[in-house]
Amino acid sequence: NGGFKFQPITLENHLKYKNSIKKTLSCLTTVGELSDVTFTEVIEHWIQNEHIYKTIMIVDTEKDQCIAIGTLLIETKIIHDGGKVGHIEDIAVNNEYQGNGLGKLLIQFLRNFAVYEDCYKVILDCDEKNVEFYQKCDFNKCGVEMQHRP
Amino acid sequence: NGGFKFQPITLENHLKYKNSIKKTLSCLTTVGELSDVTFTEVIEHWIQNEHIYKTIMIVDTEKDQCIAIGTLLIETKIIHDGGKVGHIEDIAVNNEYQGNGLGKLLIQFLRNFAVYEDCYKVILDCDEKNVEFYQKCDFNKCGVEMQHRP
Ligand SMILES: CC(=O)N[C@@H]1[C@@H](O)[C@H](O)[C@@H](COP(=O)(O)O)O[C@@H]1O
Ligand SMILES: CC(=O)N[C@@H]1[C@@H](O)[C@H](O)[C@@H](COP(=O)(O)O)O[C@@H]1O
Repeated sequence: NGGFKFQPITLENHLKYKNSIKKTLSCLTTVGELSDVTFTEVIEHWIQNEHIYKTIMIVDTEKDQCIAIGTLLIETKIIHDGGKVGHIEDIAVNNEYQGNGLGKLLIQFLRNFAVYEDCYKVILDCDEKNVEFYQKCDFNKCGVEMQHRP
Repeated sequence: NGGFKFQPITLENHLKYKNSIKKTLSCLTTVGELSDVTFTEVIEHWIQNEHIYKTIMIVDTEKDQCIAIGTLLIETKIIHDGGKVGHIEDIAVNNEYQGNGLGKLLIQFLRNFAVYEDCYKVILDCDEKNVEFYQKCDFNKCGVEMQHRP
């Protein structure tokens, strides 16, 4: 009965998984305080715009906890004949579960979903140190990410 | 009476500017056929999601034509305490108007708007050959863009 399963974040289950989602995302970057109110606002925003945001978790079914998470943002453009681009964002795997191929499973799921939704390309930004991992997931280097922080 | 002005794309004016928008964007990449129906669908999608998409044109007031265009996509995340990221996309300047600082004006407008909307960072992807230009716009290199094309 132990194992892993894919599960969406819903308005019903998001607070139940909050602590394990925070723990998982904190393996990627700063999560911050994230009050229940703020967290619910984010999930409501995603659900109201479900044709734009698709977030998927991998859950450890025995512990009933989120152990990996990732988001696909679908952008509609004028270019490429009103084409769509899938942006893969905020891919995180709980440290204790790394090395099981969960990151690759997540990427494949979100990438396939983007292709199914007719995106002409799927892109992501990452650190130089993760390039090799994403190459194994069928991505190739194509540009430079630049940032402005206020 | 000649000059440049910022103008949004609206449901009322988008077909009027269609040809000059296509011409401007074709300086960046492939625009494709873009039928009136497809174009209207994109603009309707943007307007329905105006808290996510912000597209701005620079218009040559004498010719009443779009000569530069750019989009800001505002993404809501769980990380950074329910933080927002501004993605600058599809920055294009009509070839005949290049060298007048219009690209920089566009970037500043969209970057300032993202900061005003409380984005904790503003990011964009570009070719290596445009890095210097974006550095002059107060952006710095921070990662690698990777793509998957179906
Ligand atoms: C493929 C992937 O997951 N890339 C993520 C990006 O989605 C995320 O938003 C960022 C957070 O970094 P920050 O906390 O410095 O903004 O890290 C990585 O670049
Ligand atoms: C800052 C900026 O404007 N970057 C653009 C990006 O927004 C656009 O979507 C892409 C189109 O290229 P494509 O036609 O190869 O998808 O070119 C550039 O990377």
